[in-house]
Amino acid sequence: MRYHKIPDETIRRLPVYLRGAIHLSRQGVESTSSEHLAGFLGVKSWQMRKDFSYFGDFGTPGVGYHLESLIRHINRILRLDAGHRAALVGAGNLGAALLAFPGFGTYGFEIAAAFDIDKRKIGRKRSGVVIEDVARLRSLRKRKIYLGIVAVPGGAAQDVADALVKAGVTGMLNFSPRYIAVPRRVKVITIDIAMDLARLPYYVPAG
Amino acid sequence: MRYHKIPDETIRRLPVYLRGAIHLSRQGVESTSSEHLAGFLGVKSWQMRKDFSYFGDFGTPGVGYHLESLIRHINRILRLDAGHRAALVGAGNLGAALLAFPGFGTYGFEIAAAFDIDKRKIGRKRSGVVIEDVARLRSLRKRKIYLGIVAVPGGAAQDVADALVKAGVTGMLNFSPRYIAVPRRVKVITIDIAMDLARLPYYVPAG
Repeated sequence: MRYHKIPDETIRRLPVYLRGAIHLSRQGVESTSSEHLAGFLGVKSWQMRKDFSYFGDFGTPGVGYHLESLIRHINRILRLDAGHRAALVGAGNLGAALLAFPGFGTYGFEIAAAFDIDKRKIGRKRSGVVIEDVARLRSLRKRKIYLGIVAVPGGAAQDVADALVKAGVTGMLNFSPRYIAVPRRVKVITIDIAMDLARLPYYVPAG
Repeated sequence: MRYHKIPDETIRRLPVYLRGAIHLSRQGVESTSSEHLAGFLGVKSWQMRKDFSYFGDFGTPGVGYHLESLIRHINRILRLDAGHRAALVGAGNLGAALLAFPGFGTYGFEIAAAFDIDKRKIGRKRSGVVIEDVARLRSLRKRKIYLGIVAVPGGAAQDVADALVKAGVTGMLNFSPRYIAVPRRVKVITIDIAMDLARLPYYVPAG
């Protein structure tokens, strides 16, 4: 099932709601009002209800949201219910941190392959994943891995992206501090950590 | 100058516009239309114009945006023009990646101090910054460092946040996979890398 004309901003917020719902559910909460869930997450409850309204309404009047079914719904919309395997390119400090990161499992992700150009790293295991030669990227299609994580220096990012596209990857998480050009059918989400930091001083009186 | 009642979503997008303006400006572009800038960034031009309208209008009819003055405006709104120093807590893989990250300078940031609990790391230099004992966090107030970056395992995150607040920090970037409770005057931005990854499958046909 695919939904159309949903604003990107709504899609961006769904994982936030999902994360909060999972957190509360793990604490033993069964159902919650939209005010409580929104308050816990620091978002506006009307915004959350509006976002949910694109997919029909998840809540029950007077009861609120049943967390387990809310989680199931969002997982289905974001197509996280299938489980997803991703390939990491770049096993430096950031790559190693990503391999060790415990949070991916929460959303059904697994870093199933890792690549580097450094001969000293190739063949070694990090967090249970063997680092492969970046020349082997083309094997991804056969291995049915369609998601890529780009954790290489800026100068190498476009080449890596090109190789990933050639290998059949259709979605990328880009950690390099560069814009990446890809065909229109490929989705790139760029994570610029400095950009997140750049929002802080606005809120910080003494900063 | 402080602006009020600006939606958080607008503040979240300003660094995106800033980043694009800086990029184009470095490529030698002097001014650009809102359509071109928005198209380059993959955002909607009406959205960008609406965001800018909270601060008066930056553009000139028929000419568009003069990039240098757009950059100056956004920097002033986000209070990035002053330059900001941040303290990093946790010098593991992620912390090392952050210390080596070249992108902070773009927005006037500098990681001016780094802390860890591991005696083997304390006293060593990483990317030009000496790792200090986490017990020395309280020195931040005297050093006029008001921003903190939390890059420790989830189990330690709340303790570190408490120590940062005690040391006078009023803004935090949280990379740990945990919610952090802080006094209302302190702003926390949580970066959940897995959450960004969680948006991809929605856009990816074959994933």
